[in-house]
Order: sequence, then structure tokens, then C-alpha cells
Amino acid sequence: MILLPLLSALLIVSPVVGIWPRPRNLTTGTTPLRLSSSFTINLSGISQAPQDLTDAISRTTAFLKKDKLQALVPDRGASSTSAVNSASTLQSLTIKLSQSSGAIQSIGEGAMAGLGVTDESYTLQVPATGGTASLTANTALGLFRGLTTFGQLWYDLDGTTYLLNAPIQVTDSPSYPYRGFMLDTSRNYFPVDDIKRTLDAMSWVKINHLHWHVVDSQSFPLVVPGFEELSQKGAYSALEVYTPDNVKDIVAYAAARGIDIMVEVDTPGHTAIIAQSHPEHIACPQASPWSDFANEPPAGQLRLASSATTQFTANLFKNVAAMFPSKMLSTGGDELNTNCYAKDTQTQQDLKSQNKTLEQVLDTFTQATHSALRAAGKTPVVWEEMALEHQVKLSNDTIVLVWISSDHVAAVAQKGFRLIHAASDYFYLDCGAGEWLGNDINGNSWCDPFKTWQKSYSFNPTAGLTATQAKLVIGGQQLLWTEQSSSSNLDSIVWPRAASSAELFWSGPGGDVRSALPRLHDVAYRFVQRGVKAIPLQPQCR
Amino acid sequence: MILLPLLSALLIVSPVVGIWPRPRNLTTGTTPLRLSSSFTINLSGISQAPQDLTDAISRTTAFLKKDKLQALVPDRGASSTSAVNSASTLQSLTIKLSQSSGAIQSIGEGAMAGLGVTDESYTLQVPATGGTASLTANTALGLFRGLTTFGQLWYDLDGTTYLLNAPIQVTDSPSYPYRGFMLDTSRNYFPVDDIKRTLDAMSWVKINHLHWHVVDSQSFPLVVPGFEELSQKGAYSALEVYTPDNVKDIVAYAAARGIDIMVEVDTPGHTAIIAQSHPEHIACPQASPWSDFANEPPAGQLRLASSATTQFTANLFKNVAAMFPSKMLSTGGDELNTNCYAKDTQTQQDLKSQNKTLEQVLDTFTQATHSALRAAGKTPVVWEEMALEHQVKLSNDTIVLVWISSDHVAAVAQKGFRLIHAASDYFYLDCGAGEWLGNDINGNSWCDPFKTWQKSYSFNPTAGLTATQAKLVIGGQQLLWTEQSSSSNLDSIVWPRAASSAELFWSGPGGDVRSALPRLHDVAYRFVQRGVKAIPLQPQCR
Repeated sequence: MILLPLLSALLIVSPVVGIWPRPRNLTTGTTPLRLSSSFTINLSGISQAPQDLTDAISRTTAFLKKDKLQALVPDRGASSTSAVNSASTLQSLTIKLSQSSGAIQSIGEGAMAGLGVTDESYTLQVPATGGTASLTANTALGLFRGLTTFGQLWYDLDGTTYLLNAPIQVTDSPSYPYRGFMLDTSRNYFPVDDIKRTLDAMSWVKINHLHWHVVDSQSFPLVVPGFEELSQKGAYSALEVYTPDNVKDIVAYAAARGIDIMVEVDTPGHTAIIAQSHPEHIACPQASPWSDFANEPPAGQLRLASSATTQFTANLFKNVAAMFPSKMLSTGGDELNTNCYAKDTQTQQDLKSQNKTLEQVLDTFTQATHSALRAAGKTPVVWEEMALEHQVKLSNDTIVLVWISSDHVAAVAQKGFRLIHAASDYFYLDCGAGEWLGNDINGNSWCDPFKTWQKSYSFNPTAGLTATQAKLVIGGQQLLWTEQSSSSNLDSIVWPRAASSAELFWSGPGGDVRSALPRLHDVAYRFVQRGVKAIPLQPQCR
Repeated sequence: MILLPLLSALLIVSPVVGIWPRPRNLTTGTTPLRLSSSFTINLSGISQAPQDLTDAISRTTAFLKKDKLQALVPDRGASSTSAVNSASTLQSLTIKLSQSSGAIQSIGEGAMAGLGVTDESYTLQVPATGGTASLTANTALGLFRGLTTFGQLWYDLDGTTYLLNAPIQVTDSPSYPYRGFMLDTSRNYFPVDDIKRTLDAMSWVKINHLHWHVVDSQSFPLVVPGFEELSQKGAYSALEVYTPDNVKDIVAYAAARGIDIMVEVDTPGHTAIIAQSHPEHIACPQASPWSDFANEPPAGQLRLASSATTQFTANLFKNVAAMFPSKMLSTGGDELNTNCYAKDTQTQQDLKSQNKTLEQVLDTFTQATHSALRAAGKTPVVWEEMALEHQVKLSNDTIVLVWISSDHVAAVAQKGFRLIHAASDYFYLDCGAGEWLGNDINGNSWCDPFKTWQKSYSFNPTAGLTATQAKLVIGGQQLLWTEQSSSSNLDSIVWPRAASSAELFWSGPGGDVRSALPRLHDVAYRFVQRGVKAIPLQPQCR
């Protein structure tokens, strides 16, 4: 569409069917259709519709009116004017459950029910004759996915909302139960509205998990009941926090958009900030040079050999778990620095008095925190080092985030753990923007180069895995570490790139970048129309 | 300031003097000072102040009230509360010309008077005793530079505007007359408000030239009187244009902020879009595969062997020149593709009938366009190929933009041309964001890696030049090519990075990145307070 724009300007080009992620099954025709100015979405046979479903219908109706996205073809659709003006009119969309029932589970309940528990499939039919379209699903969550698709079918031509490809038949369901996006809110703080806007954008491409890396060594913005001192002393400022009310609000906002929030409190590393309120729990706080003690400044790790620190951490997880209804919670576990403990007198004394190795106390520490999670009904999630580099007894249902390299996927699968693709060589959105430490004139980011959407889109989730191992892949995500991000560039660094893994893990691998590109442009331009500042991937089409 | 944040949190740290670019001479003390709530800026001995000077005073006064920038130290200045509360008060700033005169030249007249014609130097004194500060300069433009500096001295602590480093004495002037920023508005369109906001930001770091790469092969948004068909057929849409009124508005807005606008109409390459309205003037339009005919799609170049095309182009330059009061105008001249002409039947016939080589007609073409500029009182500016790769007789006063590589600087200087540093290996802001052509899964940008602020900051403008050649360096700039930029990421891709060359070419080379970093943070956070979405360079300070 964009390549050779002048050549394509000589042709009459139909708009692409801009559905993203691409449906598992899609058939389209060549009949134009207009949306009636009195178009309505009607529930059929659902007596007590959950509030989040009726809200989703209202949002969809609003998008149909307000998107006003011109077709991304050289003439912006002008050559279709007469065809559109004489087209049949779609009066309504009827949505119903496959099997009628009385009170049904809400979108949010479906989203938070656990990995793959709630059926997200749906069927959508838009007849060439106009009249009434139909959307059917087994759950409110499935209906929501279908509404999202319906909202992507339409373009604007001089105030008329239309499409050119009726009849449209979609039968759709996700390839993987976990389609995520990770946001770090510790390196820099993001206001609640930024997170909500990101959740909206995620939902538009059917991402169903926010992996919220809420705290880290740099700041502790999460206000945890019973542990308020952590944020009081550890947030960047009193205003740069997430209160329990904020969290409740964000969780509900996400749930209503089909998104579960998997929070992470990274332990026992990445915890330097806890020294601000609890110096007794932190080894090697602010040790210098930091590069001997941590992968980035400041140094500082939980004293995992201390029973008091272990109990403190388990209690912290208990209280964090109570804030987040998701069945998954990450205890982190990446980049543990052994030198930090080697130089920490108290840790060495604790090890000696218990006659244990560091790996043995790491196991004890992990059992304690994971037990606290299990008692709260959560499945623990960890970064790959906990499965590959340490001698920690993880229970079989633990979920592992593979981040260091996609080459490590097979090793995790060989150990029998379910895994989430989050490899830095494919999915890190912050790579390629230079060394942020500031003193290195020629420094590049540690994970150069920049990860293009094409790169993440081309990933094969089951490469090198046996059929049995392939079943351990529950999905994947792109990730934003925010050393150099803030409100100023959140949208532009994430979108439309993060949509590439959304399609990969919904539609399955093997998509062709050439045919994906015009649809991804559609995503970018529709996002902008909806207030999310996605960037163009190429010069504009003409 | 940011490195080892927890360590620095244990110290009482004074805010840096956040002036950017750093003054040529600066002395500071250790006395705190508050800004009076009735603070005023008064003109002394200037009977008829130009409107743009009184406007600049109003803007400065507004910034002092509205910036509300907390000191970027771990406690945000809280430890200075009692010192600030008991500090003396600055009641006013008196600004005056070194030699009193009646009607004086405006900031804008000074900015557009030509390279280095108008004295930008100023002297600023803020006494430790409070009372009245003084700003003195030889010109309104100099006074404006001093006002800009004055606006960077102040921080906010619970509603009190203060500084900690009085007395402050600044004696300042630029190292180079050309400190620029280049914006491409062809690959993607930027609304007028984006350009104005960028001009504001540029002025805050004393950048004094906008190199406006207004048109290119992808779109022709500039509405040129007498050549309206170019934008009518060549703009992305009827709304995505710059009308003569827009240009007048932008030029005036820039001038009032001490910025001259050097427009570029790139010729004879980078002109494919002209084929939309004038196919008779374009060789190899939309030729395929584009990579045989151009460095990026779409292919298409002016038929430089045609006298009709040459005349057309000269007339176009005449009319463009009339829109822009600057004394400089760029005719481009980069990336000329000879194969395009080899395959163009008309060009080959034209060459044959004139018995000339391509280089000979390029010379004729260039003489014609440059003559048109000279007749309009302009100095021509060209990309480096015109000086280094072609046999074109450029007049001695031609200014050359070195872009391909900083290694080519010496060759341009050896030919005796004045030059502007714009090398892709130091100054291209768009590098490192992936290959935008879309079909290459592993493609990086052609000019990887990302150019960090540290990299551009470390550039030596006179490396490898003799003392005589060094005098040919008139300055430099960072550049944004916008294949993957729009309103969505304009601020975040440009700021604060483009401030690095602003300091390099104002203050001179040799700045230390470690001591620059906290001041550059100051730039970034102050920009955000003023509505320009600069990004953080590191995790936030605490």
C-alpha cells in the first residue's frame, strides 16, 4: 500500500480488511455497505447483561461514529464514492450467546478466571444485503472480542461510515491463552491515565494480560496495605504512587476490557529501594561501584538468608496478592548478584549459622514467597534464571518468563515448565535507544539493535520444541523497560509495535510481513483517531 | 545526579545551574534568592521597544510563574526550605542596550539579518543581595538570548520561585553563527502547531535556524504562489499543506524567537512528487524496482537536461524565495541517481541534441537555480554531493551541508566552502529505529545505531581542519527525517537530544558528558513543564 505509492495511485485499491489480529477464519466479498445513521447494537436473549458488556457495546457504538478513519489507500476511498452512496445499509448488529442463559459471567470475570478458562471465540457475520449483522459467542468475553473486530471493519468517506467487503464472515479464537504487554512503572512513573489508555489500546488488538512490573530498585510506587512505608519512602514523590484505590480502579478498567493484570514484585534482586524504609532487609545497598553488585544502579538485594527478611517478603506478597484478583503473580527472580551477598556481613553470618549455601537459602526464600502466593490462590510466575540458573525447587505449575534470549526457550521447556515468550532479542521495545548511563559517548543499548515489528512478528513460538514441549508455550508479550520512557513517549514507543506480538499469539505464527503491513498501518492510524499516539511506520500513503 | 541515586540521597545537593547551552563565562555564588511575587522585567532607556521584545518579556515572566520546576535533586530542594524562606528577594530585572538608541531593530530583524550579522552576546547579573538584576546587550536579539538564560535559573519549592547560587554573572555569546535543527515535513506532515511548538523549544536552547526540508519525493505540502498545482496534486491531502499565510505565520513566529528559517526545495533528485502535476518534468517516475532508480521509493527526478524543466525549476525557486525572508535557501542536490537519467529517453535526447554530458547539464541546471536565488538576494545552500561528487561550478559563498559522513568535512573545507555540520554518523535523530521499508524481518536503519545525545555532544567541529579551514565551519545541527515520525513522536524523538548540538555550537566543543547530564535533565524536565514532551534520559532522580 505504501511502497511505490505513486504506482498504486494509478490503481483503484480496495481498503484492506483492517482486522488486527487477523482472524483464524475470515471470508470477505466485494459488496459495499453503509452503516445506518441510526445503527444500533442489540442484545438478544441475554436478560441480565453484565454492565461491562453493555459498556463495551456503548464504546463500540461510539468508535463507529468517532473513528472517522479514512481508508488508507491513495485516494482515501474517493473512487468508491458512488458505490458507497448506492450501497445497502446495515441497520443493526445483534449479539447473542450460543446458548441462552440468564445471568452470565461478565467480561471481567471471564478475563480473570485463569489462563484459557474462558472461551474467547466468537462468530461474526455481516451480510451483503445489509439489514442485521450477527455476533455470537459462548461468553461475554467472546462477545467482547467480536465487538472489537466489528469496530475495525469500517472506514469514513465524507461522513459516511462504510465498508467494501461484504459479506464478511469471521470465525475466530486465539492460538494462545496469554497475549501480554509488560510495563515497568519503577524506572519512571506513569500516571493512572497513561495505564488506562494503554489498557484501551491493548484491548483493541485483543491483548489479554498486562504484566505490571510495578516496582524495582529505582522506586516503589505501589502503596501496599500494611507496608505503606515502602512507597512513602520509596516512591519518587507522594504524588507518584498507585494507591489501593488506584489499583482497584485499574484492575476493574482492565477487566472490563478483557485484560487480566499479572503484577510483579521482583525479588530477591531489584529491591534496592526497600532499603529506604527497611535497611535491615537489604544487602549491599548503594554499593559502589554498582557494576560489581548489580546489572544497573543502584545495587541492593533482599537478605534472603535472613528469616526475618524472608518472612517480611512473604507477608508483602500476601498483601500484594490481596490487591490483585488475577490468578497469576510474578515473584521475579532475575539478575541475582552473588557478589552482593558475598560482601554482605549479615548474609554471610546467616549462611554460616544455618550451615547453608546461597542456593539453599534462595530455595527456602522462594518456597516461602511461593507458599504465600499459593495460600492466596495464585500461580507463581518467575523470570527464567529461577528455572535455569538456580537450584530452586519450583512446583510444576510455575510459569517461566524467558527474557535473556529466545535460545533459552527449549531449556525451560525441557524442564517441563509452562513458559511465556518475552525474549529480549525479539520483544524488548526499549532496545536500540542508546546507553542510558550517560557517561559513555559511544554506548549503545545492551540489547541493540531496535526490535522492529517485523522482527517480533516473525518469531516462531515453538521453534526447536517437541510437540509435547510446544504445549508448554502459553503465549508471549512485548515489554517496555522505562529507563528512558515516560508519558512523553509511552504511546509512540509501544504502538503499533506491540500489536505485532498481539497478532502472533492470537493468530499464530507464520504471518507474512508484507500482507501484515497495510493492516498494521490501519492499527496505527485507527489508534491515533482514538487518542493513542501511535507512530507511522512509513511515509504516509498517497 | 541520577547515577547512584540512593547514594546521592544521603547528601545535600545543590541544584545545578541549569543553563543550557552553558554560557561562555559564568560565575555563581552560594546565596539563595527568592523571586518576588511582584517581580517585573523593566526596559531601561529603550523608548520604542519592538513588539517581539516586549512579547519575549511577557513570555519570560509567564515561564517564571508557570514552570514550577522542582530542583532535580533527591529531595527536590526540601532541605533548602529554611534557606529559601529567609532569602533576599529579587524584585526586578532591568534590561537595557549597551548603547541607548531610539527605535531599535527587532529580535526578528536581527535573526534574519544574515549569518552572524547580529550580535547575540549579552551580560546578565543577578546580585546576591536581591533587589534588581540586570541584563545588557547590544541588540534586541542579544537581550532575547539573555532573557532565555534568565528563565533557566529558577526552581520551585512549595510555590516559591528561587535559586541557590547568587550572585550570578553571565557573559555570553555564541561560538558559531549557525545552530540549527532540520525537520522533514514531506515523509509525514506536521501541523503548523507542531512546528511552532518546535520553534519554541529550539529558542529555549538558543538554536537560531530551522532548516525546513519542506518537500521531497513523497509529498509536496508547500503551497507556492504560481505553482499551486504542485501541492494540489502533491500534498497528502488538501488539509496537509502549508499555505502562504501559514508560512508567513511560521516565519514571523520563528523570527520573534530569534530563529531564521532556511527552507529547502531539494532538486534535482527527491522530486518524484512533481510528476503528479507536471509529468513532463520528471524522469523515471515510479520506476521499478525503485532501488535501481532512487535511494528510497518512489523514484523520479527533474529532467535537468530539459531547458523547459530548468526554467520551471528556476521560476519555482524564485517564487519560493519570495515566501521566505531568510538570506539562505537550500537547493538540495543530494542522492542524484544517474541510472534514472540513463533510462529516460527524453533526457538522453536532450543530452544528445545539446552534445553535453549529464554533469554539464547539471552544472547548467544548478547555475540557473542558483542565479534565481541570487537575484532574490539569497545565498545558496547545497548538500555535500554538489561540492564533492559533481562537476558543478558553485560560487565561493555557497554553503555546504555535510551529511553522508563526518569524514567528508575536510574535503568540503579543502574546496574552500563554508559548511554546516549535519553528518548522519553524529546528528541524525531518526537512526536506529529499524528499516521502514517493511519487508525485511532483520532490517536495521541504514544509519544504525541510534545517535545518542552523548555522541552528538562529543563531536569536534574542527577535527582534521587547518586553522584557516576551521573558519569555514559556520555551525551545525541535528536532523529529523520523518519516514517514521509524526505528531505522535516529534517531541520525544527530538528532545532533549537536539539540545546537545545546540550547546556544542553555542558553547563550543569539549563539554564533558558527565557534567552536562544533570543540566540536560534540567532541559528535559523544564521542556515538559512548558508543554514539550521531552523524554527522560534515565530513571528519575530520587
